Amino acid sequence: MPTGIPATALQLRSLVRADQMVELFLETVEVPEPGPGEVVVRVEAAPINPSDLGLLLAGADVSAAVASGPADRPVVTAPLPDAAMRAMRARVGVPLPVGNEGAGTVVAAGSSAAARALLGKMVAVAGGAMYAQYRCADAALCLELPEGTAAADGASSFVNPMTVLGMVETMRREGHAALVHTAAASNLGQMLNRLCIAEQIPLVSIVRRPEHEELLRSAGATHVCNSTSPAFTDELTAALTATAATLAFDATGGGRLASQILTGMEAVASAAAASYSRYGSTVHKQVYIYGSLDRGPTELTRNFGMAWGVGGWLLTPFLQQIGPEAVARLRRRVAAELTTTFASSYTDQVSLAGALQPGTIAAYARQATGSKYLIIPSR
Amino acid sequence: MPTGIPATALQLRSLVRADQMVELFLETVEVPEPGPGEVVVRVEAAPINPSDLGLLLAGADVSAAVASGPADRPVVTAPLPDAAMRAMRARVGVPLPVGNEGAGTVVAAGSSAAARALLGKMVAVAGGAMYAQYRCADAALCLELPEGTAAADGASSFVNPMTVLGMVETMRREGHAALVHTAAASNLGQMLNRLCIAEQIPLVSIVRRPEHEELLRSAGATHVCNSTSPAFTDELTAALTATAATLAFDATGGGRLASQILTGMEAVASAAAASYSRYGSTVHKQVYIYGSLDRGPTELTRNFGMAWGVGGWLLTPFLQQIGPEAVARLRRRVAAELTTTFASSYTDQVSLAGALQPGTIAAYARQATGSKYLIIPSR
Repeated sequence: MPTGIPATALQLRSLVRADQMVELFLETVEVPEPGPGEVVVRVEAAPINPSDLGLLLAGADVSAAVASGPADRPVVTAPLPDAAMRAMRARVGVPLPVGNEGAGTVVAAGSSAAARALLGKMVAVAGGAMYAQYRCADAALCLELPEGTAAADGASSFVNPMTVLGMVETMRREGHAALVHTAAASNLGQMLNRLCIAEQIPLVSIVRRPEHEELLRSAGATHVCNSTSPAFTDELTAALTATAATLAFDATGGGRLASQILTGMEAVASAAAASYSRYGSTVHKQVYIYGSLDRGPTELTRNFGMAWGVGGWLLTPFLQQIGPEAVARLRRRVAAELTTTFASSYTDQVSLAGALQPGTIAAYARQATGSKYLIIPSR
Repeated sequence: MPTGIPATALQLRSLVRADQMVELFLETVEVPEPGPGEVVVRVEAAPINPSDLGLLLAGADVSAAVASGPADRPVVTAPLPDAAMRAMRARVGVPLPVGNEGAGTVVAAGSSAAARALLGKMVAVAGGAMYAQYRCADAALCLELPEGTAAADGASSFVNPMTVLGMVETMRREGHAALVHTAAASNLGQMLNRLCIAEQIPLVSIVRRPEHEELLRSAGATHVCNSTSPAFTDELTAALTATAATLAFDATGGGRLASQILTGMEAVASAAAASYSRYGSTVHKQVYIYGSLDRGPTELTRNFGMAWGVGGWLLTPFLQQIGPEAVARLRRRVAAELTTTFASSYTDQVSLAGALQPGTIAAYARQATGSKYLIIPSR
């Protein structure tokens, strides 16, 4: 191992215990020698995404989280509700590393040409276990970032950028011409807004707060609806009429929002139909649920005809479906537009230990729009 | 027009009035001269299917139905709830003919060879307006039935047979190997059970009453679950394990049954998965809702991973999708197996006027399993 790389380093772990508690702690792990095709990345920035929270918190009641241990090596425990415990059976007793993505400098490389070519470069990695000081990774999984890219700018170069590109790709592959997006003022929503403007794709953004309407409009969004507004149904119908959107990506999951969107799409399709049909319009209307900000049940009132679908949407199987060449093309685009179309912003930066403070956990567990944390493992 | 065919005949009509009432009545209409490619069918039997009720009753409160007029020409009125009235706006003031399918004898034919070839034959017709004494139809829409077929045996040769064949065809096209069906003791459910036995397709039948379990088991069904049983979850999981079914057709629509089925499928898929994934299994699980016996909202608890879909399924667009050759192949099979695989049974036979008795309307509007009416327009 080259000089300057320690033999051991810290890695964040999440453990579901048999006593129905989640335990979060920092483990000292060996920094491995890279295999021939591998590199060792010094992780310099890793975001806490909503998609990390399921693995990290396991559904624990974070309002009851308790910290113990020294400030630089805290151990946090929080109780698991019964339903979450049932869902987590397969994890009991196995301390799991966490962190879908991050960026950092390649500080050691295996013998292959691909690995050696990355030495000293800033790369983005998406492969789990990124809440760590060092991460050994397959060189093929590393995205080389343009020279001079700051780690903080490259940290979120996979999950959100590939998700918004995946949404647009799904739209095209399934024959739709416009999009609806909920929780639309999130980092991801702002990114989708920039991408849709760049690609001239009509987008309906649904938010819940007036300041988020403003935020998106000032970023150039044309169709922004507030679901808490008394005029929401009319505003949504007007936006759906203007855009002819028949595909929505919903980050909330629970409640009636997906159903309201389908109802609005059907109202537009029926108004355009030549004749009455008791089965509703023949226009296929689709909502993909890709998040679960509202963990309650999805309620579908089914007053939107018979040509509709609701389903789960997940990035990884989508990328498997489109194949490695298409994925590589999308990733190159992300690297090239990392500080423009695919830029992220963060509320705060924390150390690994800082990410385990109960107050900080409560803040990121809320998944409030506009609140996003970046872990800086070297701190 | 040949001798013996009257100039006018009766046709059942359903009218949504501006005063928020549905009016059902028998209209005297001219029996048309057939065009070159058309035939006139003397309708001898037409079933009242669940799929006819939306058009016929328009969502009216049939418990408040009132009949007036003479016994052979009744006029029934029933009030429409506000929500139904809103959904029926496009129909107001237009008296619509009803009846998706039926069978009868071709009594007149246009000049084309195809039309003339059907003269005197028993045919099944699916094209609407079958609750009538005579129906002029395109010869291409008529399915010639085997010689000696009784009208009552041919009356239901389209909707239910093509639906069960469509379910099996959908299963194959979407890469599933087994099926789940709800409200499974219905005429359609019994037919699907016979078809699956003939095709060696594993089928899980979900019913709500012990006598319906018995009925299906005595018809050779292997996997029958009662959703009102306290052991339903375990029984369903066992049946899903045995069959590996990942596709369900749900006739109920409302409530949590679709969700329970997806949860059971996911339990089976997770148990078979090599490792824990916080996003659930990668096995795609699908429920198609093709009926609405429970008109309440569909509630999805989303505790079944991310690889799932729920959507509407409707026969007509499915047949358009598979194309006319595939449809013709399926229809020939139906004609050949009309008294075996695709046989229907009826609780009662009624005249056109008899179908408009409030007590009878209340009976078929309940859509109770085992209760099915056949209209004999000549009575």
